[in-house]
Amino acid sequence: MSSSQATVNKAHGLCPRFHQAIELVGRRWTGAVIQVLMSGPLRFNELLAAVPGISDRLLTERLRELEAQAIIIREVSAGSPVRVVYSLTERGCELSEAMNALGRWAERWIAAEA
Amino acid sequence: MSSSQATVNKAHGLCPRFHQAIELVGRRWTGAVIQVLMSGPLRFNELLAAVPGISDRLLTERLRELEAQAIIIREVSAGSPVRVVYSLTERGCELSEAMNALGRWAERWIAAEA
Repeated sequence: MSSSQATVNKAHGLCPRFHQAIELVGRRWTGAVIQVLMSGPLRFNELLAAVPGISDRLLTERLRELEAQAIIIREVSAGSPVRVVYSLTERGCELSEAMNALGRWAERWIAAEA
Repeated sequence: MSSSQATVNKAHGLCPRFHQAIELVGRRWTGAVIQVLMSGPLRFNELLAAVPGISDRLLTERLRELEAQAIIIREVSAGSPVRVVYSLTERGCELSEAMNALGRWAERWIAAEA
């Protein structure tokens, strides 16, 4: 039984990198934040407005996680008042293919809300 | 200020269907379960072996959720002993494009574990 399970594991085995990727982008609100940044850099308050339902605290937390993962960068401009903008790195931008494919799936298979 | 936020919201607004989709597939273990079913139908114990680290309880929960979302079907064969297999529906299969794109991203951007 355990040898048959090992075969299955080998045949259908989950790629750990895929697993890491899906749980990274699928974390609550994370995919949403990445998606809105696909249109270009945004400030904190703009992100807050673009992602309906997210709280200040959670947005801060997600932005920090994404920065730690090098998916976004936080840039502070000189001048007064200081402007802070968040944008996708190359690593983040390259998620667009997967995001767009998922968007097309959602378009087709998730019913539009009335 | 609130009118500028409304514009941003309109311009970068998050598609609620996309949001629903990403949080559906990104739920802890859900993407992994979908991914291993891409290779074909599996029994419960085969799924348990193919998704390292998932518990019986969580796998049961995720399978029920995916069934409720019509992404997988659970089929019981006649005969003795009864065989129960899980497979992707058309709705589930069509996630493959997004899953593959994410897999390619992971291949490129997530470091292989030693």
